[in-house]
Order: sequence, then C-alpha cells, then structure tokens
Amino acid sequence: MTAKVAINGYGTIGKRVADAIRAQDDMEVVGVTKTRPTFEARMAISKGFSLYVASEDNVAAFKKAGIEVSGTLQELLEESDLVIDGTPKGSGYKEAYAKAGVKAIWQGGEKHELTNFSFNSQANYEAALGIDQLRVPSCNTTGLIRTLYPLHVAFGLEEVLAVMVRRAADPWDTRRGPINAIEPVLKMPSHHGPDVQSVLTDLNIQTIAVKVPTTIMHLHTVTARMRQPATVQEVLEVWRKSPRIKLVRGADGIASTAQVMEMARDLGRPRSDLFEIVVWEDGVNVEGSSLYYFQAVHQEADVVPENVDAIRAMMELERSKRESIRKTDLSLGIPSPF
Amino acid sequence: MTAKVAINGYGTIGKRVADAIRAQDDMEVVGVTKTRPTFEARMAISKGFSLYVASEDNVAAFKKAGIEVSGTLQELLEESDLVIDGTPKGSGYKEAYAKAGVKAIWQGGEKHELTNFSFNSQANYEAALGIDQLRVPSCNTTGLIRTLYPLHVAFGLEEVLAVMVRRAADPWDTRRGPINAIEPVLKMPSHHGPDVQSVLTDLNIQTIAVKVPTTIMHLHTVTARMRQPATVQEVLEVWRKSPRIKLVRGADGIASTAQVMEMARDLGRPRSDLFEIVVWEDGVNVEGSSLYYFQAVHQEADVVPENVDAIRAMMELERSKRESIRKTDLSLGIPSPF
Amino acid sequence: MTAKVAINGYGTIGKRVADAIRAQDDMEVVGVTKTRPTFEARMAISKGFSLYVASEDNVAAFKKAGIEVSGTLQELLEESDLVIDGTPKGSGYKEAYAKAGVKAIWQGGEKHELTNFSFNSQANYEAALGIDQLRVPSCNTTGLIRTLYPLHVAFGLEEVLAVMVRRAADPWDTRRGPINAIEPVLKMPSHHGPDVQSVLTDLNIQTIAVKVPTTIMHLHTVTARMRQPATVQEVLEVWRKSPRIKLVRGADGIASTAQVMEMARDLGRPRSDLFEIVVWEDGVNVEGSSLYYFQAVHQEADVVPENVDAIRAMMELERSKRESIRKTDLSLGIPSPF
Amino acid sequence: MTAKVAINGYGTIGKRVADAIRAQDDMEVVGVTKTRPTFEARMAISKGFSLYVASEDNVAAFKKAGIEVSGTLQELLEESDLVIDGTPKGSGYKEAYAKAGVKAIWQGGEKHELTNFSFNSQANYEAALGIDQLRVPSCNTTGLIRTLYPLHVAFGLEEVLAVMVRRAADPWDTRRGPINAIEPVLKMPSHHGPDVQSVLTDLNIQTIAVKVPTTIMHLHTVTARMRQPATVQEVLEVWRKSPRIKLVRGADGIASTAQVMEMARDLGRPRSDLFEIVVWEDGVNVEGSSLYYFQAVHQEADVVPENVDAIRAMMELERSKRESIRKTDLSLGIPSPF
Repeated sequence: MTAKVAINGYGTIGKRVADAIRAQDDMEVVGVTKTRPTFEARMAISKGFSLYVASEDNVAAFKKAGIEVSGTLQELLEESDLVIDGTPKGSGYKEAYAKAGVKAIWQGGEKHELTNFSFNSQANYEAALGIDQLRVPSCNTTGLIRTLYPLHVAFGLEEVLAVMVRRAADPWDTRRGPINAIEPVLKMPSHHGPDVQSVLTDLNIQTIAVKVPTTIMHLHTVTARMRQPATVQEVLEVWRKSPRIKLVRGADGIASTAQVMEMARDLGRPRSDLFEIVVWEDGVNVEGSSLYYFQAVHQEADVVPENVDAIRAMMELERSKRESIRKTDLSLGIPSPF
Repeated sequence: MTAKVAINGYGTIGKRVADAIRAQDDMEVVGVTKTRPTFEARMAISKGFSLYVASEDNVAAFKKAGIEVSGTLQELLEESDLVIDGTPKGSGYKEAYAKAGVKAIWQGGEKHELTNFSFNSQANYEAALGIDQLRVPSCNTTGLIRTLYPLHVAFGLEEVLAVMVRRAADPWDTRRGPINAIEPVLKMPSHHGPDVQSVLTDLNIQTIAVKVPTTIMHLHTVTARMRQPATVQEVLEVWRKSPRIKLVRGADGIASTAQVMEMARDLGRPRSDLFEIVVWEDGVNVEGSSLYYFQAVHQEADVVPENVDAIRAMMELERSKRESIRKTDLSLGIPSPF
Repeated sequence: MTAKVAINGYGTIGKRVADAIRAQDDMEVVGVTKTRPTFEARMAISKGFSLYVASEDNVAAFKKAGIEVSGTLQELLEESDLVIDGTPKGSGYKEAYAKAGVKAIWQGGEKHELTNFSFNSQANYEAALGIDQLRVPSCNTTGLIRTLYPLHVAFGLEEVLAVMVRRAADPWDTRRGPINAIEPVLKMPSHHGPDVQSVLTDLNIQTIAVKVPTTIMHLHTVTARMRQPATVQEVLEVWRKSPRIKLVRGADGIASTAQVMEMARDLGRPRSDLFEIVVWEDGVNVEGSSLYYFQAVHQEADVVPENVDAIRAMMELERSKRESIRKTDLSLGIPSPF
Repeated sequence: MTAKVAINGYGTIGKRVADAIRAQDDMEVVGVTKTRPTFEARMAISKGFSLYVASEDNVAAFKKAGIEVSGTLQELLEESDLVIDGTPKGSGYKEAYAKAGVKAIWQGGEKHELTNFSFNSQANYEAALGIDQLRVPSCNTTGLIRTLYPLHVAFGLEEVLAVMVRRAADPWDTRRGPINAIEPVLKMPSHHGPDVQSVLTDLNIQTIAVKVPTTIMHLHTVTARMRQPATVQEVLEVWRKSPRIKLVRGADGIASTAQVMEMARDLGRPRSDLFEIVVWEDGVNVEGSSLYYFQAVHQEADVVPENVDAIRAMMELERSKRESIRKTDLSLGIPSPF
C-alpha cells in the first residue's frame, strides 16, 4: 500500500515534506496547494507536483499569471488519505479535513490542544499508530526533545533550563526584523517548556527565549541536572546512539551557526538543509550533576523527518519505531544509528 | 584638592570617562592620548582636551596630519595623579605608570590578577580608599554585579545562572562580524562567572556566553535561586533602591534593546549613552524560590560611573560610598536613589 | 511675535522638530500629540511638553496607563498658529488643519501634490514666505538637494544619476527587515528623481534605489555631468560655502556610516543626530566633465532644520533666507557658512 | 584524453570547481590541498577527493587531528596537467606551478598582470585555446561581463556605469563586518571597471562600489547608453539567447537577493548555488538610449562554469566555445540557450 498524501500549503515546511515523501517508497504526494501564483508555485509544477489552489477564489490570479492548476483543495483531499497542513497557524482547516475524511498532521505553529497528540519519532511513535490527527511540535521544541529525551531515559533529568537564542526570520522572509537589536520574549518562562512537556510529560523544564538578527539557525544553551551523574563522554555516547543528532567540533573550525550551515551545504543535502540537531562536542561540560551544552537547530528542516515518520505511524505503514526512523533517515541521507 | 587625571587611550571607554570627569568638581582631565591621528584625535582637541601621543614614534604621523600634540604619555603622566588606562588589553603600561608614580585604573579587558583588586561602587568602594591600582571589570561583569549584589544582600542567592547574549561589535567597529550567525563561546561556563566572583567572592554563579550580530547592547537572561524567597514586587523594590538600575516595561513599547537605546537618545544623555543597567519590570518572574529576569547592558557606557567613583575612592576625595555614587550620578544625569 | 506650533505626531520627526523649535527664540511648542501611551509619550511629558491625544478615542488608553493628557488634537490646534504633521503618510489631517485655521507643514512621506509646494531652505525659502501649507521632502530628497543645488548654481548640471543605498529601518523599528538581503526598488528610476524636481524643477536627474540591512544612515553615490567643468577643489569649495554639508575624510578613519554616526555622538548633538549631509572629501572624483561623489544622510534628522526654516518663512518671522538658516544652525550647533 | 586537474586551495571556489570538474567526462580531479585540518578537509576526504597538504610543514597538524593526507602539493602537481589556484590572493605559487610544468588558472583576487590573460567563456574562449595560464576575473567582474558583453555585441554600448552593492562577507566568514553600516569604496571609480576592460577592452565603463552588511549576494545597478537604441523586450531577448543569465520577476515574489537564493535552494543545485547572473525582468527600463537594470551575483558560484570552460580551452579538449559552454551547463544543471 502506498499512502496518498496532500500538502496543504507548499511553503517552508510543506515543500520540504513534499520532497521527503517523494524519497519514500511507501507514500506519495498527490498534490500541493498554494494561495498565490509565486515563483514557489511555478517551482512546484516544474518539479512535477500537481498544483491545487486553496479555494475557487484563487483560481483567477493563477490563470492571470499563466499557471495552470489541477483543481481546488477540496478536490485534492478527495484523492488523499492524509494531509500535511503547512498553512500559517490558525488557518482553521480542521473541519475541512474531517469532512473529507482524511487524516491530518499539523505543524508547531498550532497548539497541542488542536489534536491532543504532539508527536516525536523517538518519544512516542508507537502511540501514534493508526491515529487520525496529530501535531508535530515546532522546530525549537523538536530540537529540545531530540537531545533531552535520550538523556532523560539514560540518566534521569531532574531539572532543565534552556535559553533559546532564536533566529528572527527565515532566510527568504525579508519583511521581518529586527536588523540590529536583541529582543527578549518577556513572557517568561516561554511557551516552549510546556510544549516540550506535551511530549515529555514528566520532564521538569523551564525555557527562556530571546530573538536575534540572524536568519539561519536557532541556538540553544541547555543546562540540566542529572539524577544519575554522567561524564561528558557518557553523554556524548548516548547522543551517538540516538537518531538525528549531529556532533560537531569548534576545534574543526565550526565556530558558529554559519559554519554549521556551510557544512550542510558541503554535505549536499537538498536545499542545504540540516535535519539533525547539532551539538558541539567541545561545548559540552559537566560539573557535578550539572550538564551544560549548546545545540543548533535548523528551523526550516528539523521537523521534516518527524513528519515522514508521523505519516508512517498514522497510516500504519510500519509498526516499529526504529524501522521507520531508519528508513526515513536512509532516504534523506541522514547517518542512522539504527 | 582636585585630582589630576590622565586618560591613556582616548577610545570607547577613555573618551566617555574623560567627559564624565569633566562633569565633576573634584577632578580634572590633564590630557588624553591617541596613537593615530584619527577623527577622534581631532575631536579631543576640539573639545578642549590636551592631546598627547603614546610615544615619540607617533609624533610624525600627527604632524603629517596637521594635528598638534602637547607631548608624550610620559610627560602627561608627570603632571598627573592618576591614569585611566583605556588602551587595548595587554598593552602593558603597568611599569610605566609605576615609574611615573601615578595611581592607575584599568578596564575589564585586563585580568583581575593585574591589580588584585576589582572594583564595583556598590560592592567594595570602601575597600578601595587610598589604594594605588585597581581594575573596573568589564561591562558584562559590572552589569551582573549591579543587579545581583543588592539581591544577594537582600535575599541571599544560593545559585545564579546567567546566559549572556553579547553584541558582537561596538557601533563604530565595522571590521568585526558575524553578519548573520550565532556564535557560542564554547569554553563553558564562560570567564564572566569567575570575573563576577572577583568582586562578589561568595556568590555561586555560572555564566554562558553567546555572540550575536548586533552592535548596540548585551542582553542577559538571569536565573537565581533565592535563599529567602521574595515576590516580584519585593525584588523590584530592592532594585528601585539600588543605584544605576533602570526599570523599563515592554508594555510601554520597549520591546528590545533597540527601544532601550531610543529611550537613551530621548533622555538626552551624552553620546546617547545609558549608564544604568536596564531591567524589564514585566520580564521579572518568580516561581517558588527561583527568580528569572532579563537585563540589557550598554557596553560602551555602564562602567563610566564606576571609573569616576574609583578615582574618588583611590584619591580619597570622598570616604562615603553613598556620597560618591550620589555625586557621580547627579553629575551624569542619572536619577539617584541616594 | 512668537509662533505657536503644534506637533501632531510625536514620533521620529515630530520629537526632533519639537526639540529644535524649543531652541529658537521666535517660536514655541504649544503641545504634541500621541495616539498610544508609549515610553515616548511619557518622555514628552517628562521633557515638559504638553501632551494631547489625536482623538477622544485615545483618552481611555492613556488614562489606563496612568498618563494625564492636556486635551485632544482639536483643542491643541485651536491654540496654535501652525502645525507640524509628523503622522504616518496618508493620515489625512488636511481638512482638520484647514478647519482649525492653522498653517501646516507635512513631511516627505506625503506627495508633492498634497500642498503643491515642496520646501528646501536654500532653494526656495523666499517663495514660502507667508504661505499656508507646504511639504518638506523626504530625508533622501532633501539630502540630494543639499549637495546638488549649490553645484547646479555654480557649474550647471546637465545630468545627474544618484544610486541610493537605503537603510531598511530606523534604529527603533524592530519590525522591519530584511536581516540579510539586498532589495532593489524595481520601479526604476525611483520616485526620488521627480521628488527632487518638485524643488529643483530644471534639474535632469534619475534616481535608483536599493534597500539594505542597516538602520543608521542612507548612502548615495552621485554622478553628475557638469556644464562648466570644475576641479575637485572647486567642488569642495562650493560645498564649504553651502549650509548643512559636512565634509569628512576616509583618511581620518571615517570609513563608513558607522564612523560618521560615531562622530555625531562625539559632537554631542541631541540624540546623537547629524543634521548635515556628509560628503567624503577623499571620495570626490572628477573625470572630464563628470563628477562622482558619495554622501551619507542621517534619515532621522536632516530635515529638522528645514522644518524650522519653513515655520519661519510661513510665519514671516524672518524674510532673509540666509538669516533664517544662520539662526537655525546656530541654535542647533551646526557650523554655519553664513 | 582526460585532463588531470589539481585544486590548490579547497576553499570557497576550490571546492565548487572540484565538484564541477567531477561532473565532466573530459577532466578529473587528481587531488585537492588544504593547509589546516578543518571540517572542510574532512569533508573533502569523505567526498572521495585525495587530500594533499600545501607543504611538509602542515603534515603534523593533520596527523594530530587524525586526518591522513596523500602527500604534498609538489607531489600532487607532478601527477597533474593543470592546477586551479584557489588560494588567498598573493599566495605566490606561480613559480611552483611553472617548475612543475603544469598549466594554471588563477581566480579574481589576482591582478590581470599575473597572467596577462583574463578569461570569460563568452568573450574570449577561442583566444585561450592551448595557453598555459590565465585568470578568471572576480565574481563581480564576471557578472558584469555576462550581461554587458551580449548587449555590447548586439547594440553597441557607448558608456556604462555600474554601482555595485557588495555583500561584505561570505556566509561562512564570521570574522568580517560590518554588522550595521554602509561602507563606500572611496577609491572611485573602483577597480572593477578596468577589470572588466581586461576582457572587454573596448568597453567604456565606470564602476562604483559600496559594501553592505549581507552575506548572500552582490547586487549591481547598471546604467548603459546604447549606440543602437533597443526596447526592453529586445534587451531581454538578447539575454535569453546568452548563456548563464537567469531572468526573474519581482511580480513572482522575487523581491530581493533573499528570494533569489531561496529559488536556488528550490532548484536543488549543489550547495544551493546559483551559477547564473540574475536579472530582474521587471526592473529593466529603457529611456531613450539609456538602459537601466538590476542584477544579482552569487559571489561563491558564478565563476565556477568559467573555470570549467577555461580548463577545456587551455587543454584543447574542445575547440568550440558554444560546445564547451553547452557541455558545462548541461552537466551543472544550468538551462542552456546553446
């Protein structure tokens, strides 16, 4: 069986998930939607994706721009088993999906309460088997879960504090600033803590967020008190055995998020994306029971493999978590420990 | 008695301290030094400061640029009681100052060990009375001491973690990047923790630093465990009674370091400087015994009043800490709680 | 007689013009308006300006924020002879001003057609004597007129091309990007050319605009064909005799807009503003009849003296252009050739 | 015959040319050199390139880092027919190459005089047949030649003025600023004009350069007076028939260099590179005989196809310019008009 997937919203996440689905042998993209006839719409067609419009209202603009569309979202949903919702937060398609009888995956812009299930491949794949709707938490939340979950399993984390230095806008998004300022998220602790807890319900975590003028990656400083103290080497070993974590070293010239992204370009990944969470080996420190580390998150890409695994779980294409992760990672060029 | 002060190095700190000394009635600037005939050298002269060169070797370049100098550093020192060292770190003038028999104040680029006395007006003014040399710690360290010292006195701080999101370059410094990256300081915890302890010897503090592409201010996120728990209002009250702390509110439209600096411009301070450490009232949070807050540090200016007080202590112009702080603040337009 | 001036919109331009008016002996600020109770509103009051609200609708928000207001715009206008409109473009107060019988000055966000008179102190002061409404063109347009007008008078300019590398957002404006991109203004030639011609009607000028990720100044590269060829020295001499032009040199370490603004801070101007247009002496080049130069424009401040002169002309406080310019410049600390 | 190519300096240009050579069937990479054991060195090996060190002195550092090297530059040159010099400007390997009897290609950091032949595939491929050394001009110069050469052939250009708004640092280069300033290149006209003339000897061109805080692309505004006036459509038609020029439209949402680079990522090119010069269709304007346009240059990549063609010409692998360009473009995924 091949799962038929619709991509509603061919934007930052939607276009990446579309490409990732294409790289699988057990699912396919039925079509993608756009609301405006931009270069991304043209690109979707030139890549061979069937292009649909969100509603009849949008058809005229596409016609005027000389772009032929295959139909409307409603028609696309009728041919699909599952929809990836890549629309801006609060777009409100829940009812439309239910009416069309398709399963649905939302992204991290939405609240946990929309689906009451927040997904992470490592943490709760099995619980997602066969369910009809879920949410993949945001890039930042997914990034924290990736490195904290295996540590929590291995050593028990009594208390975690993460300060998230966030990129202010995506590379293509030229409308947002700031250009020269640091902006604290005054509502403190930030919403990311509870968001991590929507997956890791027993983790005591506080998060603080700050926005800075960069476009390429988020950077987190994480402090954790371990119940069972471990050495730096033991911590690194846990991460080496966990999926989608990439260890790098400042000593190799990777001094900032800029060199991390340069490495991603050299790796030849599509769109120069980095699906893994990056941790600096020589930035990990243990003092007594306290663990400190830095990690970098490629906000455009880290949730992509989670979306693929989520499809597999919901459509019951694969019952084993490890097998799904292995398969996804192999297809996307991510070295897998499984 | 009027203390005669030399400024060796009329740069970012030196030029500000020079202006601040001018605003006092018990000290005066004998002269300032430059090594190259830049616009800042011309500005010093047009402001009426006597301009000296670091050494005979520099005289020719000034002559060629049509700038007349009053002599060399050595000659300047001979006329002075005390020298403010505003030279790049490690410039190594210690011997020269000793030989000339002048007291000396270094800045935070130098290590504590250079003078074995790190100064903060609130924390150890009295201990500096009459001594011959000291160091004013860096902008970041001074910023942390300003808000932590009164809390430590009031409530007792068991443990502090500060994550310092640092501006990568000063506004005038166009050679340094990064332009679009976040750079962790991998040596973690960073050197700022021990630096705070050079003044607050009994404070248990860890610091983590990250560099970001902005020029205007540092921003710190501070987490502290209080021995004697306090409410947000009690914490704010402590700061209101402490000098050189400015409370602002996001609700008033001060959402980032950009609006803080805009406020500083509106305040009409020289060079649009902000001598105070800025804390967001509506960014302070208490959960149990844990206190969280954000503060912003104007890296070019916050140590200026400390330099003035340090002169006063070393020259024994004023024996009362409160009186010196009150006097300095009044002269610089800083609202004083004393 | 003292002209009574209202400032409608105490923002970037409004607050600067308010301070500049205060520095004059023949005009006074009756009051300023804000629509929201921000820190700028509090600052206006602490500076001693009477604060009014744009309309009754805004009163509640101010009350809630604990800020007392003196009345509404309408009440303010009744006490005023002239209003400086510092509101966002297209705010549409023209009728209200007419109804209240006050003269009015708009800023460069508005089109020439709103008042059919675009003002520049040097170019057309006399024509503005006694008129009821005018517009001070934008910072960029005013900047071009400042340096081009005296050259046009002296040598005759046959053809001008200006490429304007524009700051994307003001320092306080953290919402606008881009953070990491260059954005051409595709409508080319840009609107600035015709805007210059709204003042210099016989100048053949084309302009091209590009937006870049900086907040502090615009930079223009200007190319002009001179009817009567001149040497670099003759060109510089013309500018030295013209008001509000500041010559700087790369050789003095002023290599970019960053060092220009640093110089402005050292000059001690309010808000570290630079009212003059900055031209790099060592960036001026003549090849045959072609003249090339770079100039920098402090977008927040360069139109401030023009606003003051415009008030003087419209209110007929001073009939001589040179006298008004001299007076304004003296009061604002701008060295004057007059 | 397969040309054996050494890459001396596996950096920004070197690593891209290495990959491009791999995509050809008539040339191969014998090895690449690094001076330090960075992540790029590891990446070269993991991509299957033989890694050499510049000199014996570097071997120890590589050994210490656990990286095995295949030998020294000298040994590499012995096995090669031609070397691509990707070292920092002025590295001075000319003699070494001559001694080893290999042909050599330098990059745009070097002066024309080093080889007395500056290469552009379109403009002088045939003249490079069989020669021993040449230089591929810089990214900016190559970018100007790409769009100007075909216009000059088609319409005759009497006079060209290009203002180049340059990215201040490459994406990986976090040491360079400025972070918040615009920096004019005061030596005006800039060196790029004569550099274009090193290829297009009869073109009357002046260039002006300005540096801005962005990392991703240069943007040029070009003004040209045409001998034989043409319409916008005729101009576009010339470019459509010329290689390595990509027309984009603001109307499609490509408003800045950010969206251009996003498009490049969507195109799936290696490292998200864009080998073509980008011209905005809806930014081209003709007024009388004057032509205005904007173009964007991906500084890391545009010279890569030129390097491949240059190898082919020097090694006489292909005598036809059109055939070489067609072949190179096909292999790199660049749509070719040939």
